[in-house]
Amino acid sequence: MNDDAAVLKIGNETLVTTHDMMAEGVHFLPDANPADVAWKLVAVNLSDLAAKGAEPIGVLLGFTLGDDAWDEAFARGLEAALSHFDVALLGGDTVSGNENGRILGLTALGRGASDKVPARSGAKSGDALYITGIIGDALAGYELITSQQSGPQSLLKAYNRPQPLISAGRSLAPVVTAMMDVSDGLLLDASRMAQASGLAVEIDLAALPLSENYKTVRGDGRISKLAAASWGDDYQLLYAASPGAKLSVDATKVGIFLDGNGITLHDRDEMIPLPEKLGFQHS
Amino acid sequence: MNDDAAVLKIGNETLVTTHDMMAEGVHFLPDANPADVAWKLVAVNLSDLAAKGAEPIGVLLGFTLGDDAWDEAFARGLEAALSHFDVALLGGDTVSGNENGRILGLTALGRGASDKVPARSGAKSGDALYITGIIGDALAGYELITSQQSGPQSLLKAYNRPQPLISAGRSLAPVVTAMMDVSDGLLLDASRMAQASGLAVEIDLAALPLSENYKTVRGDGRISKLAAASWGDDYQLLYAASPGAKLSVDATKVGIFLDGNGITLHDRDEMIPLPEKLGFQHS
Repeated sequence: MNDDAAVLKIGNETLVTTHDMMAEGVHFLPDANPADVAWKLVAVNLSDLAAKGAEPIGVLLGFTLGDDAWDEAFARGLEAALSHFDVALLGGDTVSGNENGRILGLTALGRGASDKVPARSGAKSGDALYITGIIGDALAGYELITSQQSGPQSLLKAYNRPQPLISAGRSLAPVVTAMMDVSDGLLLDASRMAQASGLAVEIDLAALPLSENYKTVRGDGRISKLAAASWGDDYQLLYAASPGAKLSVDATKVGIFLDGNGITLHDRDEMIPLPEKLGFQHS
Repeated sequence: MNDDAAVLKIGNETLVTTHDMMAEGVHFLPDANPADVAWKLVAVNLSDLAAKGAEPIGVLLGFTLGDDAWDEAFARGLEAALSHFDVALLGGDTVSGNENGRILGLTALGRGASDKVPARSGAKSGDALYITGIIGDALAGYELITSQQSGPQSLLKAYNRPQPLISAGRSLAPVVTAMMDVSDGLLLDASRMAQASGLAVEIDLAALPLSENYKTVRGDGRISKLAAASWGDDYQLLYAASPGAKLSVDATKVGIFLDGNGITLHDRDEMIPLPEKLGFQHS
């Protein structure tokens, strides 16, 4: 499950649905700001819709109740996040929580903006692999938070307040051959796209888009690049497109799809071994 | 939340959405058969759609992983239940569970069968209150199971395998003024319908539809009737309709809506005090 958002025809419209969960201790830290948790729960689900080129309509929440102060701060944060993205709370349910941690679930519904709803399985041999924005900032932010260090706000914000790329997704959907959001790490998600498309993918580490803040905090050596490429939480859009396609979104070419299967990695001309973990593997 | 399923216009269709959760120890017993839990999770959500006169389309599951044998039995039961009701699993997500109990969430999507989607707020003064089928069997089944007694299969089945009344809901939707499913007890749900409609409701205990098996196991005195009327899990449809409305569904008239507010109870001609709890109050 959670492989891909589902696409349904409802009358003359295309409905896109997704359901992502967040568990305390797995997807968020026990001492996280409840408003940040609410934001992220909304953002990660809207990011799934963005990868389908869909415009969000509304969400349904499954919530485990805990202490009142946390629940109220979460509710205020949720309201603010939904208002920010102009998305309705359609419904939901609550149950008594337990002491071992909250489990939050959100279903998001969106309207396909065009007849073409990209899947992760549509890449063609010879297509280039692109990624929007930058990767790694969320990793650097997470490390600052867990080590209780101070650092650039942009890194903390990348971890606490990811931005679903809804407009970019709508703009890209008609042009790309395959698209998904990077929630589990670029290498892992790219390998999934290649596998779903029945192709091999080659990725150039030297091309990875890293921020100056990321490089300052974590360095720009190979280990740092591999870390950025195998850590989730970036919520950039990863897509395949013909090298000649006209794309109206700022993005970086990081690889190429070829006949075959599997993922290979190089750093300019040098082939390099894959890291032990390509990304965040869900249990 | 969970007050009412939400209704959306999508293109030329009406989409109905709902999300109900079930928590171990609250909504199901720790030693429950996983296939029964899966059935009930599907059934209670489809029952919400039935109360809107909607035809189910698909579901999204939020699932806390536990031990493999339970998870696999649940997955098989879920597949069987979805196949029985001809509903698609659109997606979902899983997270690692914890030892304090599973929390399951399901979003169900349905298609409104007519332009008229009943709410709980539409009852008119003078409308009769009807309930489909019988109530109390699920309570009697629950008591047999928790006291480890044997008893009629129909009672066990009422608790373990509730039936969402999808066809009845579609047939009633164009004719009723208000409708909901009885998930928290007839008295509590009727009082909610009255409150949402800005009316009072009077209920006649003598009219309650009880099964012969229920009466054999729990008696048919006033205490037994009050228990059946204030216990959830029946998943019958409760609706308001003009006393002269032609209804194609077997149902029992159990009350009447009047100007005013609150719920009153009588047993034929005798007014009787309300029980301390009208039904199952969610935390």
